[in-house]
Parts: sequence; C-alpha cells; structure tokens
Amino acid sequence: MATATTTEITFDELGLAARNHALPLEALRHDVTPVGLHYLLIHYDIPSVDAQTWRLEVGGAVDRPLTLTLADLRSRPSRTVAVTLECAGNGRALLAPRSVSQPWLNGAVGNAEWTGTPLAPILEEAGVRAEGVEVVFRGIDRGVQGDVEQSYERSLPLADALADDVLLAYAVNGQPLPPQHGFPLRLVVPGWYGMTHVKWLAAITVVDEPFRGWQQDVSYRIRQSEDEQGTPVTRIVPRALMVPPGIPDFLTRTRIVEAGRCELQGRAWSGWGPIEHVEVSADGGETWADATVEPGPSRFAWSSWRFEWDAAPGEHVLSCRATDATGRTQPLDAEWNFDGFCNNAVQRVPVVVRAATR
Amino acid sequence: MATATTTEITFDELGLAARNHALPLEALRHDVTPVGLHYLLIHYDIPSVDAQTWRLEVGGAVDRPLTLTLADLRSRPSRTVAVTLECAGNGRALLAPRSVSQPWLNGAVGNAEWTGTPLAPILEEAGVRAEGVEVVFRGIDRGVQGDVEQSYERSLPLADALADDVLLAYAVNGQPLPPQHGFPLRLVVPGWYGMTHVKWLAAITVVDEPFRGWQQDVSYRIRQSEDEQGTPVTRIVPRALMVPPGIPDFLTRTRIVEAGRCELQGRAWSGWGPIEHVEVSADGGETWADATVEPGPSRFAWSSWRFEWDAAPGEHVLSCRATDATGRTQPLDAEWNFDGFCNNAVQRVPVVVRAATR
Repeated sequence: MATATTTEITFDELGLAARNHALPLEALRHDVTPVGLHYLLIHYDIPSVDAQTWRLEVGGAVDRPLTLTLADLRSRPSRTVAVTLECAGNGRALLAPRSVSQPWLNGAVGNAEWTGTPLAPILEEAGVRAEGVEVVFRGIDRGVQGDVEQSYERSLPLADALADDVLLAYAVNGQPLPPQHGFPLRLVVPGWYGMTHVKWLAAITVVDEPFRGWQQDVSYRIRQSEDEQGTPVTRIVPRALMVPPGIPDFLTRTRIVEAGRCELQGRAWSGWGPIEHVEVSADGGETWADATVEPGPSRFAWSSWRFEWDAAPGEHVLSCRATDATGRTQPLDAEWNFDGFCNNAVQRVPVVVRAATR
Repeated sequence: MATATTTEITFDELGLAARNHALPLEALRHDVTPVGLHYLLIHYDIPSVDAQTWRLEVGGAVDRPLTLTLADLRSRPSRTVAVTLECAGNGRALLAPRSVSQPWLNGAVGNAEWTGTPLAPILEEAGVRAEGVEVVFRGIDRGVQGDVEQSYERSLPLADALADDVLLAYAVNGQPLPPQHGFPLRLVVPGWYGMTHVKWLAAITVVDEPFRGWQQDVSYRIRQSEDEQGTPVTRIVPRALMVPPGIPDFLTRTRIVEAGRCELQGRAWSGWGPIEHVEVSADGGETWADATVEPGPSRFAWSSWRFEWDAAPGEHVLSCRATDATGRTQPLDAEWNFDGFCNNAVQRVPVVVRAATR
C-alpha cells in the first residue's frame, strides 16, 4: 500500500479508473440507475461463469451443508428492493496525500432494484452451530492485492448476516445480473458499503472465529498509518450529490448556467439512518438553505431533493449536504485516513452564471 | 487544446476517465459486448429525452422535409447488425506528449448488435437536392469545447451517408437504447470511429457545402500542431487486443500465469478491410507467430483469434498485431499526432509466469 503526495494521478490509478467507472452525475436524475450507469468496482477480473455448472456451497460451522443451483435459489421466496450502493473509497482521489488505489472523485454510487432470495432462511436450513460467530462470503474472482494472492472474500458478523433484509440477488432492475454486477449471484447488504456486497458468490461459510482475510483485516479499515490495525468500514456515511446544472465544459466539467431561476436536484443517502434534511450552499459552504426532501421507496434507497436557486451572473460554487436521523452529516473538508475510505466531504460544483440570452 | 508532457494524469483527465469507461479487457471474451461493458465517450452530459415528445427533423437541401416520431422509425424496415465501435482517441494516454483530453489507454472499444432502420431510404423519401454535398447529424447534447458552445454535430459526405449499411439505431443487444448509448436514436456507420455515430439524434440536415462545425473542422483531425488544418479521422485502423491471461495484480494489472500451455484469445478489427491475420509475440515484439483467426458474423464486427502459448517461467511481455486485407497493420511504437487520434500501437501485456503449482 502506498500513498501519493503528488496532485497528479499515476498510470496505475488511470488503469483502474478506465476499468471501474463512476455514475455520471447527470444520471442522479434516474430514480433507478440504469445498468451501465451504476458505479462499478471490480478488484480482479470479471469472471466467466457457466450458470449450468455453477453451485453455491453453504458450509462451515453448520449442521447441514447445502449445495444450491441457480434454479434452487430462483425457486425460493423472492424479494425486490431498491438499494443505494456506494464504494467505501468514494472521494479517495480528493484526499491529500491519497492512497494509490482506485482514484474515485465523488460518483462511486448507484441505486438499483435488486431481486433475490433472503439469506437468513438458507442459514437456518443449514443450521448454524452455536460456535458460529461470522459468515464468510467468497467470490469466484481471484487476484493479487497487498502482495497476497486471494479470492475476494469478506465476512459479516452472524447477526448482520441474519438480518431480514440481506439478499442473495440474481437480478438487477428486472434482468439477470450482468457479468459486471456478479452473475449469477451476489450478496446485497442494504446500508453497507459496496465491498460487503460480494459478487460472483461461490461459497458461504460459517466460521467460529473472526475472519482474517486481507479484504477484512488489512483493507477496508479506517486507520491513520499502515501499521495501525484501525477500525472496520461498515455502513455508508451520509452523502448528498446534485445533478450538475446547466451545460458542461468538456474538459473541466465547469457548468455554464443562464441567470435566473434554476432548479437544483439530486439525491441523498445514509446507511445509518433515514435522511432528515439536505441543505444547499451557493457560496462554497459559507451559508446554507434547506432543500425539499422526498424519501426513497425503501429504507436504503436514496432520497430525492430539490432546491430552487436564483442564479445571479458570476462565478459560484454549489454544494449540498445531507444529515441523517442519527445526526451524522458531511464535513466541508475531508477527514483524512490512510486508505482514503468514507470521504463524504461535501460536493463542490463550480458554476459560471451568465446573463440570460433569452 | 493543450498537450501534457508529464507522465502523470491531471485531475481534469481523471474527471473524464471516471465518467467515460473502457471495455475491461477480460470482456473481450464476449462475442457481443454486454451493455455496461461497452466503452462510452460522452462529450457533454447524457441528455434526458422524453420519447413521446422527441422528434427527428430531416431537412436542409431536400425537397420534402420530414418530421419522424420514434414510432415512425420503428415501423420502417429494420435491420440488426453486429458492429465494432472504437473511440478515435483510443490509446491517447500512451502518447508522449499527449493531448489533454479523455485519457484512454487501449480499451475504448465494444462490439454490439445495433437494430435500426436504414438511413438511405429516408434521405430518398426526403429527396436530396442536386446541391447537397454532406449530411449533418446533430445530437441533443450540448456543451462547451474548444471555447465554443455547441451541440454535438458531425457530418458525412453524401455518398457515405447513403451507404447501404448506415443505420438509425433505436436498440442495442435487443433492448431499447439505454440513455448512455443515445436513447432514443443514434447513428451507426459501420467501420467508422465512434465520433461518427452521433447519439441522441435530433436533426439530419443536408447541406450544400462542407460542414465546418468544431467536431468536424477542429477536432477529429490528424495534425502535427494546433495551427495545422490536418486530415479528417474517418475509418477505424486495425487493432488486435487480447484477454489478459491468468490473474491480475489489483493495482498494476500485471498478470500472473502458471507455466505450461496457456491459450491466449482476443479480438481484432479494422474499418478498412477484413482482418487477414493476427500475430502474437511473447518477447515484446521481437518475434511473431500467427494466431488462428475466425471472422465475425458481419463485415464490421470484430474477428476472434486464438493462440496456444507455451508459458515458460519468468517475465514476458505479450503483444498481438492485426493486419487487414488492405495491408494496414499496427506499429510497435505509436505514430504521434497532436490530438492523439488513431493510436493503434500494439498492446503490451506484462506477464509473470511462475512454475506450475499443480
């Protein structure tokens, strides 16, 4: 793991940025993010999976290990839920110095409708033994990270794995999962950052001591230095983003807006509590005013917000800020950590307002 | 327009890389690229289009201007064709110095099945007048580039616009176009670079002198300096790419492969002539051997290739090189031009082969 103090981006980071893409911010206008606009973070390669031979193995500290086909999973009770997924590294490239990894600006998010079968009844059928403390989810994808060759694996404490809303999802937005979203099966844990929602699931294993895999024990932790153990990244901290108004400059993405009434709109979400309010600032965070907020269709789907801005000619920096029911909100300046996780500093959208031409 | 001489990437370039994504190279394995894996290059914003009120205006130097609804277009004869699209700027970031723009490495490509109605009969119905020399295609998307506020517009010489295989496409891979691919209608001009395939079509206008819009007259030209007029970018020059073998390192994407027989596979395409052969090098381009090539299902769909490589322990650089029926091929080193177009230098895939562990 390395940090970069330069303000420019290395070619290794560019290689990741070219593969893993953000939500183009104008796509915040869709209640449900279309496939292809939802953010993607793929650690290794997208695996090639034959659904006919694929099996899900449920084992470890259980009384009755299970081997399930895709047809088995599809024949179980199904549920569809809208869930906002965000990468824990969203905002990483805006930190200084920054961890050299996927260089997210602020668009590593999406809100999709996931369809699958609840996990808890499957674990109940398997019969979790008394010594079970965590559940490990292993993907088919394999590679090297932190000098360790590994399959992508993450765990959840048993109580979180047994939560009512945890799904094994085989469809998104009414279609079978596309390869990049985990075909044929992925985990969906509403409210948690994206690293939790293991894609291309191969095995679910109940373990009798905390899982120490690299993606759990080394990465996805809030720490101030490489030597520190730190604390695990879990649920999504609040964030609001806006659809950038007006039209863009191709290269700088600076916005050009005509003077007058300008309706700003966007989304806000939190994995900790419902969004209570969203505020908007047109002066780079000096003063704030309340936006109108409309909750999403489910607890962990993003909320919508709108704000009528009277755009006066000149240069402005627009920002928005979400606060949830637990009182968690967004800082003006990022709280730094070594790996660049959970940076929910407020968005800054430079806008040039010109006198109306009509 | 500016060039960068640094080896690192600016934040403006990162902003574009986060929006516009490449094909993850392992997705070369799909004959038809799934939506969401196909490359995207969006100059301004993805527009929001109401298909009910949207209209296509066909006008200019024609006898009978037409106004067509989406239903009108769907009720006309339809055709489906597999077409490989590639961005003219693919490979730009590998040039030094490079133009500061979308910093593509080498994955700005995809091969999809486009469904639409042929353009030529529509132009015939409209009755192109004798003075018509070009056809201008205008998208709904609008922004600023090169300090010029503009809608995205490109033209084709009349003969190219009337070619049999030019489509007005309303579907991709059997589904209505998603927003990012031009909903509700885009132009498809098989064999030409991506800038030609205007998305979010609003108007088709026959003009009596060559179109001088920014995307035609300033950009998308091969030139050695900013002052030079240059020559227009048109058809796709040949390229072969491989599915990187083995497993990746997360950050560097270096491949780890086990020693022994390793089947390499990939795709090759050219907008100038059918692919005649693909060669593979395992020593950074010193020596080459022929791969087995299988043509695609249509003239401008990519061909498949396979090559059996005997991977010996150690470090290697794998490359592949396509040659088409016109004799066009790929250079080992890029031919530089000011804006970084048409860089089809051969791919270089660093591979570490380790002694087989089983």
